[in-house]
This record gives sequence, structure tokens and C-alpha cells, in this order.
Amino acid sequence: MREESFDVVGIGHAIVDVLANTTDAFLTEHGIAKGSMTLVDAFRAETLGRTMKSSIEASGGSAANTLVGIASFGGRAAFIGKVNDDRLGQVFAEDIRKSGVHFDVKPFTGTTATASCHILVTPDGQRSMSTFLGCAPEISAADMAVENVSAGKILYVEGYLWDTPGAKAAIRSAIAVAKAASRKIAFTLSDPFCVGRWRDEFKALLAHDVDMLFANEAEAKALYETEHFDRAFQEIRRWGKAAAITRSAHGSVVLEAGRVHILDAEPVSQVADTTGAGDQYAAGFMFGYARGLSLDVCGRLGGLAAAEVIGHMGPRPLVSLKSLAAKAGLL
Amino acid sequence: MREESFDVVGIGHAIVDVLANTTDAFLTEHGIAKGSMTLVDAFRAETLGRTMKSSIEASGGSAANTLVGIASFGGRAAFIGKVNDDRLGQVFAEDIRKSGVHFDVKPFTGTTATASCHILVTPDGQRSMSTFLGCAPEISAADMAVENVSAGKILYVEGYLWDTPGAKAAIRSAIAVAKAASRKIAFTLSDPFCVGRWRDEFKALLAHDVDMLFANEAEAKALYETEHFDRAFQEIRRWGKAAAITRSAHGSVVLEAGRVHILDAEPVSQVADTTGAGDQYAAGFMFGYARGLSLDVCGRLGGLAAAEVIGHMGPRPLVSLKSLAAKAGLL
Repeated sequence: MREESFDVVGIGHAIVDVLANTTDAFLTEHGIAKGSMTLVDAFRAETLGRTMKSSIEASGGSAANTLVGIASFGGRAAFIGKVNDDRLGQVFAEDIRKSGVHFDVKPFTGTTATASCHILVTPDGQRSMSTFLGCAPEISAADMAVENVSAGKILYVEGYLWDTPGAKAAIRSAIAVAKAASRKIAFTLSDPFCVGRWRDEFKALLAHDVDMLFANEAEAKALYETEHFDRAFQEIRRWGKAAAITRSAHGSVVLEAGRVHILDAEPVSQVADTTGAGDQYAAGFMFGYARGLSLDVCGRLGGLAAAEVIGHMGPRPLVSLKSLAAKAGLL
Repeated sequence: MREESFDVVGIGHAIVDVLANTTDAFLTEHGIAKGSMTLVDAFRAETLGRTMKSSIEASGGSAANTLVGIASFGGRAAFIGKVNDDRLGQVFAEDIRKSGVHFDVKPFTGTTATASCHILVTPDGQRSMSTFLGCAPEISAADMAVENVSAGKILYVEGYLWDTPGAKAAIRSAIAVAKAASRKIAFTLSDPFCVGRWRDEFKALLAHDVDMLFANEAEAKALYETEHFDRAFQEIRRWGKAAAITRSAHGSVVLEAGRVHILDAEPVSQVADTTGAGDQYAAGFMFGYARGLSLDVCGRLGGLAAAEVIGHMGPRPLVSLKSLAAKAGLL
């Protein structure tokens, strides 16, 4: 087994977040449902891109956000995801590299553009998102070379990828490669609706391939079709591998084999935007795990990172998570 | 081993609650600290009793409240506690029997009066309590005859009793008797300040005598001198016997041997008065346990009973807990 170059290699949708302040009138004019996330097509994404004024562009997407968090902890992280060689694709690549994440996947050569998520922020602080998936699901088995997917101690995979047959097949081959190299396979359920669409496949993945599970409470309940947190918790305990279940203000529960830790949420003075809280929790947990820290410290690093992003707009840390963790006495 | 006549036999302070509506001016005039609980002497208790108008009198005290809860679930409960043969002592005995709890302890023959807790409710719903312990701590080894303390499947003991040397000695002999009869010994930490006063003795009790522990989060943290819930939880897990830790809106955690259940709080439409929530939680849990129900159902019965008393003034259920539990599908 060759030595790993990274703590975590993550696979997910490569999406450029395009943020702009706007008015309620603009949302009404463009028929955008306030406060929700809507999937849109290329035409609509282009129109929005043209119409939105003075926007901020940044690399985004759930797994990519997690990897940026790991880099902020001082961890070594690599991202596998697909962009086109268009302007937004270049924005994505530059931005994620600037955040300290290794990224060198060959750009998509077809006509489908780089994925974008147009985030419109109204004066009341609400975010209305229009996501165009573009070429993000076009990752292929060719992108999953053994030297890439087995380059990390942990291979982290986003549940969202299941929605496209091609991406799913690529992930399956990546998992096989990482398993053969004795890497840990970490998986996030991503979204309760995503769980609803792929419940049986996700359960089979857990049974055969996954070593580490990330879920929020709603996703865990959706997976086991129960209204009771405890029932989902019992199922995950029975499964027995490493898991972190996040519960918003109720903190989180982390478990592995016989161990269980019930962790309080880190105090947040003001909840500004919960987008990305789960992504950053996964960052803290996996960073701690890859560095051999105890299970409860892994969970507390997760909680710390989640609290940081909840306190401001945007899904990525604004300050060094490494310093925050040191200040909290966790590193 | 003879058969048990009761599900639970409980030992605690026998206190008569005297409730009256009053004004802020009355509190100021009598120097009563609003919203708090103050220990008072006989003279002050008498003065308050004379001055308070149109009051409601009812049997009270933490363990006694728990036993009334058990009776409300349809359980068989007996109380061991000390009253004088005065008017309030008769009120206590009549009221607790009317609630379905067996009570036949010989009254105290000294001059110290029956304990009372004068509860003054101001128009804003706040409760200001003046507690006179009176003869409540005068329970003696003579009250702990084997046919009494071993008459239940579970012997339930209040931590509050530790504050008086005589009561503590009586409890120690009761525990010895119950252990010899192979009964389960259940113990509640009662109060974080009480834990602070008797930490080492409580830890020794857990190590040698107690089979079932009740604590709220503050008490559990106080016992193990930690600010982190998870640390207290890990200590209790290591201890390994049956335990229920209540966490207010965060629900409860119940555990025994390798099992752990993380239970949500039951929904409460309006928090009117949290007095007695812990007492009723213990009622539901022990009723379930004595009836051989699974650990998670014991905890859910506890949560159900706690939610009932939180929704209204007063520490005892206003409706049948048995019906509530049946409606919730738990019995």
C-alpha cells in the first residue's frame, strides 16, 4: 500500500456559486420562489447570469465545501469533480486551488457548461437559489484513476451524485478502487429527498462499501423511514461503523463500534445562514479522524466548523478553522 | 423471596404544598425572593400559613410526586415519609391516599410540625416557594421494616434525604434491607446543589448500592464536575447500570449495560411550569421498568409524563397518565 498524499479525497458536483444582492421585485419578475432551491436549465442559468448585477463568484458544491473546510483545518484535501473549460470552470478551478484544495481533473470537452448556483440574497437575508447542474454529473470512470481515488486516507462521496446514472457508475468504480487500496470510504446522505429517491441503493452501499456515514437528523430518519430519531440511531448503531449524525441546535451524535458520544452544539451568537453547516461538520470530523484523534474530538471539530459557517453568510469558513480549533484546545 | 405488593416503594420528604395566588406587593411585604425556593423555619411557615388567603393544600415532595405519577399510570406505589399528626399531616395522608398511593407510616410524635411548602403564585405566573422541612427528615430506621422497604420491585430514594444525618442513616438501613431482598435500588440526584454537598457519598452509593439512576443534565454534570454533557454521559455509561438523564427541550438519554437510547422531548404546546417534570419522568420510567417494558419505552413513558406536568401549573398530572400512554400507543 503506497502512502497517502491526502487526508481526504472528495468526489462531488463542481458548482460555481454566483451570489448577488437583489430585491423582492427581481425575484417576482423572474418567477423565483423565495427561500427555496430550484433546479434550472442552461437557458435560465444564462439569463440569470446576465441579469444579476455585481455578483461574487466562488467555487461551491457540497463535497467541495467540505474539502475547503479540511484545508482550513490544515488538512490535505483533493477534489474530483467536473467543470467545463469555460469561464466559470476557470473560476471554479482557480478558487478551489486558492482555498488550498488540490484539483486537477481534466475539464469536460462537451458543450454542456460548468454548473452554477445563482444565489439571490434579498434585504431580509433570505437566499433563493437556482441551480444549473451543467456538466457537473459528467465525471466518468476515466477520472477515477487509482492514483487519484486512492491518494487519500479517506475517500469522501456525496449522495447527490446518485441522481445521474453516469456519475453513479463512476462512483462505483471509484469505491472499488479505494476499497482495493484499503482506504476508508465516507459517504454523506446529502439530502432527505435524495435519500427518498435512492434509499435501497444507499442501504446496500452502507452494508457493503461505506466505512463512515454523515447524515443530518432528517436524512437519517428518511433512510430508515421513521419519525423517531432514536430508531434511526439504533439502526446506525447496529450497522456499527463510524457515523456522525448532526441535529442542529441539539448538537450531534457520533458513534463507532461500541462507542457513542452525545455532543452539544457549539454556541452560535447569531444564526445568519445554515447553508453548509453539514458540509463543514463533515470537514472537522474527517480531518480529526484522518489525524487519528479520538471520536469525541472528531465530533467537536465538526461542531466547531459548523458553528463558524452558521454565524455568517456563505457555506465556507471565513477564518482559519485550524486557529479556531487550537483556541478551543482541540488541536 | 416473597412476591412484591408494589411496583415501587419510595422514600422522601413528606411535604404539604400550600398554593395561593398573591401579588408582588405581598412578596415585597414578606421579604420573599420572587421566583426562588427558600428554606424557612417553623415561625415563618406559620406566619405565611395564617396570612395566605384561599389556598389549595395538597401532598407534595419530590419522591411523593413520583409515586403519585406511578399510580396515575396504573402502577402500585407506596410512600415512606414522615408527617406529624397535626392538621397538615392529616391533609398529606388523606391526599396521597386519594391519589392511589399506599401510605401508612406512623406519624411523628415530637413537637416539630409537618413540612410545608408555601407556593405563592404572582399574576405573571411565577412561583415563589418557602419550604419548611419540619419533621420530614425524622424518618428513622424503625420506619424501614423489611416488609415495607422490600414490598416493591424497586426501592426509590431521594437524594434530598442526604441533608439530614438521621434520614441518611435510615436510608442506608433501608437500602441494606432492600438489597438483601434482591430489590432494585433507584436513586435520584434531586438537585445540583445537593450533588455538590454529597458528591463523594453519592458516587460511593452508585458504586456499591444503586441499580438505577435518575439525573437531569445539570445534576449529572455536577456529579462528575464537567461542563460537557458527553463526559458525564461517558461516566454513567462506564458505570453501566440503568440510568435516565433528562435534558429539558433536548429530550432524554436512557441507558443500561450496552444499550443507549436518545429520545426526543414530547411536544409541549405551552410551558406553564416545569416543577415536577423530573419527578414525573422518573414515574414513567420506573413504571415501565417494573412492568418489564423495553428501555426505550420506559424513557418515552417518562417523557410523556414530564410533558403532561410541564403543560400546566403544579407538579402532578391532571389527567390519567395511563390513558395518555395508551393513546400514544405505549401501553
